[in-house]
Formats: sequence, structure tokens, C-alpha cells
Amino acid sequence: MANADTIFKQFREHSVAEFFRKNRQMLGFAGKTRSLTTIVHEYVTNSLDACEEGVILPDIEVKIEELEGDRCRVVVSDNGPGIPPKLVGKALGMMLAGTKFHRYMQQRGQQGIGATGCTMFAQITTGKPVHIKTGTGTGKIYECDLAVDLKTNRPVPANEKNYDGDFRGLVVEGEFGEAKYDKGEYGVSEYIKRTALANPHAQISFTGPGAEKVVFPRASDKIPPKAEEILPHPLGISTHELVDMAHHSEDRKLTSFLTNNFSRVSSAKIEELRSLMPNFDIDKKPGELQWAEAEEMTKAFQKMKWISPSTDALRPIGKDQIEKALLNILNPEFMYVGDRRPKVFRGGVPFMVEAAIAHGGNSGRRTAEGAVGGSIIRYANRAPLLFDAGGCAITEAANAIDWNRYEMRDFDAMPITVFVNFVSVHVPYTGAGKQAISDEDEILDEIKLAVMECCREVQLHLRGKARVGEREAKKKAIMRYVEQLAKDLAELSGKGKAEDIQKKLVELVEGKYKKHIEEASLEEIAGEAAAAEHAASGENGSDEE
Amino acid sequence: MANADTIFKQFREHSVAEFFRKNRQMLGFAGKTRSLTTIVHEYVTNSLDACEEGVILPDIEVKIEELEGDRCRVVVSDNGPGIPPKLVGKALGMMLAGTKFHRYMQQRGQQGIGATGCTMFAQITTGKPVHIKTGTGTGKIYECDLAVDLKTNRPVPANEKNYDGDFRGLVVEGEFGEAKYDKGEYGVSEYIKRTALANPHAQISFTGPGAEKVVFPRASDKIPPKAEEILPHPLGISTHELVDMAHHSEDRKLTSFLTNNFSRVSSAKIEELRSLMPNFDIDKKPGELQWAEAEEMTKAFQKMKWISPSTDALRPIGKDQIEKALLNILNPEFMYVGDRRPKVFRGGVPFMVEAAIAHGGNSGRRTAEGAVGGSIIRYANRAPLLFDAGGCAITEAANAIDWNRYEMRDFDAMPITVFVNFVSVHVPYTGAGKQAISDEDEILDEIKLAVMECCREVQLHLRGKARVGEREAKKKAIMRYVEQLAKDLAELSGKGKAEDIQKKLVELVEGKYKKHIEEASLEEIAGEAAAAEHAASGENGSDEE
Repeated sequence: MANADTIFKQFREHSVAEFFRKNRQMLGFAGKTRSLTTIVHEYVTNSLDACEEGVILPDIEVKIEELEGDRCRVVVSDNGPGIPPKLVGKALGMMLAGTKFHRYMQQRGQQGIGATGCTMFAQITTGKPVHIKTGTGTGKIYECDLAVDLKTNRPVPANEKNYDGDFRGLVVEGEFGEAKYDKGEYGVSEYIKRTALANPHAQISFTGPGAEKVVFPRASDKIPPKAEEILPHPLGISTHELVDMAHHSEDRKLTSFLTNNFSRVSSAKIEELRSLMPNFDIDKKPGELQWAEAEEMTKAFQKMKWISPSTDALRPIGKDQIEKALLNILNPEFMYVGDRRPKVFRGGVPFMVEAAIAHGGNSGRRTAEGAVGGSIIRYANRAPLLFDAGGCAITEAANAIDWNRYEMRDFDAMPITVFVNFVSVHVPYTGAGKQAISDEDEILDEIKLAVMECCREVQLHLRGKARVGEREAKKKAIMRYVEQLAKDLAELSGKGKAEDIQKKLVELVEGKYKKHIEEASLEEIAGEAAAAEHAASGENGSDEE
Repeated sequence: MANADTIFKQFREHSVAEFFRKNRQMLGFAGKTRSLTTIVHEYVTNSLDACEEGVILPDIEVKIEELEGDRCRVVVSDNGPGIPPKLVGKALGMMLAGTKFHRYMQQRGQQGIGATGCTMFAQITTGKPVHIKTGTGTGKIYECDLAVDLKTNRPVPANEKNYDGDFRGLVVEGEFGEAKYDKGEYGVSEYIKRTALANPHAQISFTGPGAEKVVFPRASDKIPPKAEEILPHPLGISTHELVDMAHHSEDRKLTSFLTNNFSRVSSAKIEELRSLMPNFDIDKKPGELQWAEAEEMTKAFQKMKWISPSTDALRPIGKDQIEKALLNILNPEFMYVGDRRPKVFRGGVPFMVEAAIAHGGNSGRRTAEGAVGGSIIRYANRAPLLFDAGGCAITEAANAIDWNRYEMRDFDAMPITVFVNFVSVHVPYTGAGKQAISDEDEILDEIKLAVMECCREVQLHLRGKARVGEREAKKKAIMRYVEQLAKDLAELSGKGKAEDIQKKLVELVEGKYKKHIEEASLEEIAGEAAAAEHAASGENGSDEE
């Protein structure tokens, strides 16, 4: 029998970078097409976030070159605020480091893993570092080759250069193996198109292999308002978070800790809390808050009436902006952009669903054979979600909709794009790959309602179209009839020219058509036409009588 | 405009524990039932692995008590080798630390996250540490309360006690919130039943809430052979791993590095490699191996003929053991356990698929209403996979089988259990929750073949059953006919007793039935019976003639 000491001789600690090297599929590095899209996604997302923080209208360029042996060179450059040289290593070569993880505000990136994951992926598939160039607009430029020491999760910069020059932004260039460029639904160009759709303030240009170039011009010069850090709402806080925050607080009393660190906590609310917890000393130091007390407090929070959490921190794209983007990129025949109020999930996390449906034009998806079909495009905080559609609340909500009811029985063969953007300070992703939103009830319901609102408008449009179509068909049928009738009448009566008769009949039909062609049947119109002819012939005398 | 320095003022580093606190769903802590099952899974898996390493027949006890407010107390105890006191904290209170992560051998646990994840979950849902008691069989016992410092991913032990006593093993006791006991398909009792099925050498007892107690007795006293660390096969190595290994090697030459660190690399193979890479100095120091050279080398490996990787490190359950377990727990009417050879995926990773199908008895699953249905139970290295069935290669392979062909048209309503155990040193899980196997082609194909082998045997059994069923029905019909015929004949002839005639007829039918009842039609038998009666009556004289 082996004893514990022998067994535990091999005990070691590992770095998070090693963990994700072994589990790279968790970061989206699974499959050649997906890996390449993941790389572009991580860099473009970072660029958009950085521009937003810097209050800059983004200008982003993505270049992809295919090399031999399933390798691609990717270059992403932006005009963002840049990264201070001393932090470049940590920002792009160290996992779980960054500005975003701990802040309660709405951003695309959340975890400080993505860009470093790309650096790691370059390393393990080509052995090469990525190349970084950045300037913060101060006349200094910094460049380096960057790798991650996977054993320690520390950045390893090399060939560092500091020189003078006029550049603000970030350029990342890397060579990645096990990566393939694909023009399909999961490929880079679709990803960029979708990004452009949700970011009308950004100019994004894409140069693919074979010099194929697409530019998605800026549809709006309005810089989206900067995301704000907000205080958590008492209803959204768990006992654990409350204790954790209290024990790290520098406030002198629990009362001030609560009013300073939570939204909607007024002194009146503090008094209400005091009356709900009469045996508890609410004036004690935050550091002394016990779990049981915190638990009682979160329960008391649930019993109190609160003003809903502030939705100031939510940064929707906005109805106007979505309209501009849809027009700009899909040029649809009809579109409707919904307009919903923010909601709350888990009691205290504000979120909002922006939904739109575009019909006709370049809406929908196209297969390689050119067939058109309905397409559901998903976003979380404006970042497109391309993969894991099956496990996503947006797909689930869309599948729960009875499309037949809304004249979209043939959804899968119609030129329709359903656009859904989930906006929240905290997006409950189902995995580190950040490609699907968890199907919590409040979220599912709200997405469904938002899409159905658009469906109703599309239904009216499609019904209208159907009606116009029917009218046109009727009119055509009548016109053919009119021509024949005019000829016959002219011949029979021997009086009046066919053209004159026809002209009168047409006028009659047109007038009738405008007024109530819907109700009028072909027979009625024919009857009236005959009567008109009768009157006309009566005027000139008639052989028939 | 905000500049880079302002933006990056908030730059911070975070711990992996903080990451998984925010992304606990990635560890399986999503939903109350699943969270509880995850806790039991992590502890039981650790116990089984520890016993295997200690070459001990496992005796595992799981107790669950329901407390107020969706809380459960869980106690898991084993008779394993125990943990040396100085490592208890790191083993159960620090993520990415352990004995398993870096070793190339087959174990249930792989990542050094699970048990610490449970400690974290107790903390964030109840504020309480878990309690640990362990002895390594040396007459000393160690106990402590253990928490994780989430900010630093360091263990925080408290109330440590060291005392004398006779105990070997590990007892973990914790109180967990947001957890619920459920008797269904995803609950703890189903999980334990499945674990027992795949571990016939383990005795597992389970005491649920309400004193409900189930014991799965040991079905076999054979301790599974200890898993072994194996050397990687040249075909399974990536350029990155090759460089990484070479740069950490203490061998003096690349040649010895290759023969010492890889399986199947003989001096003859080294010479072959030398001839394939004539411009390359294969005698240089491993630390000097360049990426391009390593890449050329991995390409050369692909061109060479290799003996397949050793499958010695694979630890299947074994045909006999699976049979014993199925009999013990499902008591089926029929079962077939396949017997497949090990295979290789990604060129160099050995794996093996053990499949079995049981029919009748307690096979299949039962709904709350008592309805029976076919059930596919999935394992990876003997650990049951309860969740994420949709994304798993085993489910995908099973869905690709045409069950109709094998007389299992009504699979969903039949008492059938399909058992699949995926055995490998490296299980390609789709996520950190370790609930689904990635659908790589070689894996999919092999699972399908393994299950189909069982299907064919089940088909024969079911056909046989159907035939027996048909025969029985025929026989019954004939027997009813015989009785009536005997009476009629006795009455008509007035000679012979009905009983005697019937006896003769029955003998005739039984004989006939044994020989070729399948071919014989009711009419034929009736005809023969009449002839027999004729003969019998002739013997005694007959009124009819």
C-alpha cells in the first residue's frame, strides 16, 4: 500500500495560464475557424472598450493573411488611448489582470483573460510571441515582442523599444497556428459585420486574405456615453458579498458603510433596517459584521421596499443608432427597432434588451448556394455572440416564439434579421468563452417580450405587403379584362374607339382601386365598367337596344 | 478625453479563486440540485482516486442532511490514505494545486480545482468553512476548519487540532447553501448509484435526508491496478509541448532526451529521425532546440512508422467487473458487455471505450410516475457524467445509432440501460465542469462501434425473446384448441376419455412444438391432431365411419 507521504510527494501548484493551456477550448480556442474568430473578437472587443473609456470615436483595422500550414497572421490596430508601456506586459501577457474584473460597470470584456489567451495561443501553436506597438498620445511610442511564461503566468517582454513619434492607439500583430479563415457564418467577416451593426459609432475596416477588403463606415458621430461604475443595489447583493465588502471597508460604522457603498440606501432606509433588526447594533464597525448578521440583513433587505436599481450605468446602443446601423449595413425594405425599459434580474442587477427586426434588402443569412434564410444575431453589450447558440437565452427565447402567428411561417427561408442586444453591467455568461447568456427566467421573459414587440410590427408590414400584393394582382387581372372589354365593346357597338373606351374604363378602375378595391370584387368592377360603357354608348346611340 | 494613465489607474491582478467565484457555473455550481450533486461528485471522486493511489478497497460513506433555507449538510468519509496535515490546506483550500494536474496518468480528477471549489461554495453560500479530519494511519489525527482566501487563493485553516488516534482516511463535512436534495435523474442518489455501477470494487453507502439509506455493497474484492504515469507518444506531442519539455530537460543531448522522455523512441528510431532531418544536429543540448526545428521534428514523427502508444496506463473497469456490477445493481434479464481494444486519438493519446447494455430487471430509468424508459449512462474514467448530455460525444454517438435496426424502436419506453465508460489518460472535457466529452471524430467513431457491438447482441436477445413470445402465444392457442378438440372428439366418438385424447394430443403438440413449431401452422397441427385422433379412434372403433 502506498502511504500518504509517497502519494503527496508529487504535490504541486499550477498557474492559471497552465490551466487554460490545457483547457483552451474554454477560452474559445476549439476548431480552426472558431479560434481565428476568437482572436479577432478578443482584440476588437478590447479596442472598442478602450475607445469608449477614452471617449474616442473608434477607428479599427483588422487584417488577416493566410500563411502555410493552417497559420494566419492577424493585425488589429486602433486609435484608442493606448496602454502605458509599463502595463503592456500585464495587460496582454498575464491572465486575470486588468482594469475590468472588479469594476461594477458595463463593458464588453470582463475577465482579463481574452487578450492574454491570444498571446498564449500564438505561443503554443507557432512558438512566436505577439508584437505590440502602442502610444498614449504623449509623443512616445513603445514596442515589444510579448510572451507569457505559462508556468508562472507572468509576461515575458523582449526586444523592447522606446522612441519618439506621433501615435496614439494600439497595434497587435501575431501569427497563429491551427487557425483557418472561413467566409461562413462563424468566420471573421461575419463577426466584423455583426460588430459594425452594433457599433454604429465605430469605423471598422477588414482586409481578408486575397486582398478582399470591406469597410463598414461610421454611421453616427455620436460617441456612446462612457460606462459608469455604479454602486450595487441592496436586492442584488449576496450575504457573502456583503460580508466581504464590509470586511474590506474603511468606513467607521455599518450605517455609513451601507449608505456609501450601496445605491438607494438613504438614512430613512437605515432607520427602517434598524427597526427590522432591533437586536442588532447597526452602528458597529463594518469589520465586525458576522455572517449570521449579514444574512439577517440581506433577508431584511428583501422585506423592504426599494426604488429599483439605477439604470444609469446601462449603455444601450439606442433606437436611433440601431436604425442607422441597420440601414447602413442591411439596407432593409422594412425594419422595426423596439424600445424597452430596463429591467432587473436576481433582484438587483439591472439589464435591458434591445431588439430589432429587419426584413428584405440584405437582411437574413445567405448560404454558400445563395439561398436566403432568417437569422438571429445575438449580442451582449454590443459584442456579437457567434457560437454556442444552442445554449443561449436569446436563442431559447426566439425558439419559444410562435413565428407562424406573425406571418413568418417560413422564417428559415425569409430575408429576416432578428437583432438582440443584451445590455448589463453583469452578463451571466454560461462559460469563459463568453458566447452564450444563461437562461434565467427574468432574462428569458424580457428577451421574448422584446422580440415579440418587433414581431408585431413586422406582421403588420408583411400583412400590408401581402395586401398590396393581392391588390396588385387584382388590378392586373382587371386591367387585362378592361383591355379586352374595351375592344369587345368597341367592336360590338361599332361606335367609339377602343382606346377611348379603355381610357374611361381605366380611369374608373383606378379611382375605384384607390377607394375600395379591397372590398370590390372583379365582378363588381366589371359590372360597373359595363354600366359605364352602357352610359357611354347610350350617349352615342347603341345598336344593341 | 480620458488618457491611458487615468484609465489604467484601476489596473489590478486577480486570483483564480476570485475568477471562479464570479464564474462558479463553470465548476458546476449552477442550480440547487446540480450544486449538491457537484459537491458529492468532487468529494467521492477524490476519495476513489486516493484509494486507488493507496491501493485500498474503498469504503465511502455519504451523508446528506437538509437544513432550513435551501441548505444541506454534506459529510463524505473514506478509508483512503489520508492527507499529510501540512498539505491539507493546499489540497482542499487552494485552487490549481494538487498531485494530478501535471501527471500523464489516468485519474478521475485532473485539475486540482474541484474540492477547493466546494470549500469556496460553502463559504460564499453560508459563510462557513468546511471541517476536515484526516489520519494517514500513523496513529496521529489532524482536524481543522478550512476556508479559502478568495483574494489570494490561499488556504486559511483554523481551530487546528493534532491528537493521537487510530484513523486512516479523510472526512470532509460542510454546510452548503443554495443546494437542494432531489431524488431525480440529476440528484445525488442517482449519481451514487451510477458511481457504484462503475466501481464494483467500492462499497458506497448513502444516507439521505429522512434517514433514507442505501448501501451499494462491494461486488468484487479485486482492487483495480494502480494507474501508472506513462511517457507521451511521439505522435501525440505538439511542437509547443516538445519545445517546452526540451527546455526543461536535464538530459545532455536531444537524442537521450527523446529516448528518455517519450515512449516507443528507440535508438533505431533516433537514426531514422537523423536521416529524415539531415541538416539538423540531433546531438545538441535539448535547451537549444528551436521552434522551427521542433516543428520539423514533429513533422518527421508523422512520417515515421511507430508502434502504437502503450495502453498499459489505461485502467478500464473490465468486462467481468462490469458484469458483476450490472448484476449487482440492475439485476437485468439480459446484458452484454463489449470488449474493445484500446484506440488512439490525436495521433498519440490512448483511450478505450467500455460499453454495455442491460435489458430488463431494474434497467432503464423511471419517471416520478413510474414509467420506464431507455437510459444512456455516461462515464469518464469511471466518474459518472450527469449533466450537459447534449454536448457530449457519448450522447452524440448514441443518437447517431439507428435503434430501429436493433429491435429497439421504442428505446424511450424500454427497460434498457446503455453504459459507456470513456477511459483515457487525457479526457478531452468540453468544460471545467467536466460533464461532457468533446466530440472528436476518432472518439465518436469508437463509441459508436462499441455501443453497436452491444446493440447486435441485444438484438439477438430481443429477437429470441420475440420468437419465444410468438411460440408461447401459438402454443397457448393450440392448447386451447386441443382441449376443445379432445372434448369434441370424445363426445363424437363416444369412445375414449377426453383426458386420454387430450393427453395424446398434448404429447403430439409438445413434440411438434420442440421440433418445428415455428414452421408449423395452427392448421397443420390441427390436421395432425385429427389424424392422431383418427388413429386412436380406429383403434377403438369409430361411429363416424
